Amino acid sequence: MMTLYETKTAPNPRRVRMFLTEKGVGVNYAQIDIEKGENLTPEMLAKNPLGKVPILELEDGTCISECDAICTYLEAQFPEPCLMGKTPLGKGIVAMWQRRMEVGLMLPIGQCFQHTTGYFRDRMTPVPEFGQEAGKDYKKSLTILDQCLAESEFIAGDAFSIADITALCAIDFARVVKMRLDDNHPNVQRWHASVSQRPSAKA
Amino acid sequence: MMTLYETKTAPNPRRVRMFLTEKGVGVNYAQIDIEKGENLTPEMLAKNPLGKVPILELEDGTCISECDAICTYLEAQFPEPCLMGKTPLGKGIVAMWQRRMEVGLMLPIGQCFQHTTGYFRDRMTPVPEFGQEAGKDYKKSLTILDQCLAESEFIAGDAFSIADITALCAIDFARVVKMRLDDNHPNVQRWHASVSQRPSAKA
Repeated sequence: MMTLYETKTAPNPRRVRMFLTEKGVGVNYAQIDIEKGENLTPEMLAKNPLGKVPILELEDGTCISECDAICTYLEAQFPEPCLMGKTPLGKGIVAMWQRRMEVGLMLPIGQCFQHTTGYFRDRMTPVPEFGQEAGKDYKKSLTILDQCLAESEFIAGDAFSIADITALCAIDFARVVKMRLDDNHPNVQRWHASVSQRPSAKA
Repeated sequence: MMTLYETKTAPNPRRVRMFLTEKGVGVNYAQIDIEKGENLTPEMLAKNPLGKVPILELEDGTCISECDAICTYLEAQFPEPCLMGKTPLGKGIVAMWQRRMEVGLMLPIGQCFQHTTGYFRDRMTPVPEFGQEAGKDYKKSLTILDQCLAESEFIAGDAFSIADITALCAIDFARVVKMRLDDNHPNVQRWHASVSQRPSAKA
């Protein structure tokens, strides 16, 4: 069986847990305490030289890291249900919204958290002023997402996709810096209430 | 014919130009002056609400933005030559290195440039101290890339891929903040000299 090295409370591993659950693919889950630096041991650095989780280890020991890459592998290996688009155009549109959610929501909220709280100050130099700017970027992206969700049920159109997973994990993580959805984002609120009901959202 | 809205001097549009050239796919190239803000006109915001280039406009007017998404569409529509992996594992490994090159090289060098030079100070708040940290992150990623290229001809293995394109465009762009490859990265230097000879690198 495959093993997913992950951290239950971190937002990026949750993306892969949700993806696996939507696919119905079972794996061993191995917990790594990133606050204690368990991701930086020689054993873990051999699996991912960047020292990050999640990491998917295949049965033959091959390791794939980076959420989007793990999901790309899983989508090709277990095509149903489709979460990354079926046609060439569908794949392109899902990838576009996946990237917008990564770069517009997940990345800035992660940077806001790391730079304003200093959570990883033992391994990086936090710049609080930049953390505040990243938080503003996150809010701007929510506005664009609200316009998107005024016109479709899910982020990349009529079908649930990896872009919905990335956005949900980013938005839920934003609570750690006290950023919550409000009435400025009614369409995101409608979508969030719906997507949060999926069994995978509780995985 | 498809149209690529792009900016000849910017690093991200170059990624798509290289990808198109490797595929042998012809498009109309429409130049957008991002320094003057031509990417922020109502007409361009209708094509991409994020106000960024490149944007690929299909013949029916459908627009795809985000480099990786444009390339995902092109790879599915024009599979040969393969640039994003053939097998499920191959696709996952290419996606992993593509993401590492995006997040480890292109993103921090872009942030270093924007935050240290204030190039876009009319539309964002530069934080020079953060720009310096981003430059350090870029250098750390070069070290990891050098270890990778000690063991394989190209970044994701024995075949040229989208990950090589992303890395080349990031490394060449780094000249604007006076960061150049040096003898600390002999394997990256060997790879850079080779990849720079491809006709697509001059596109």
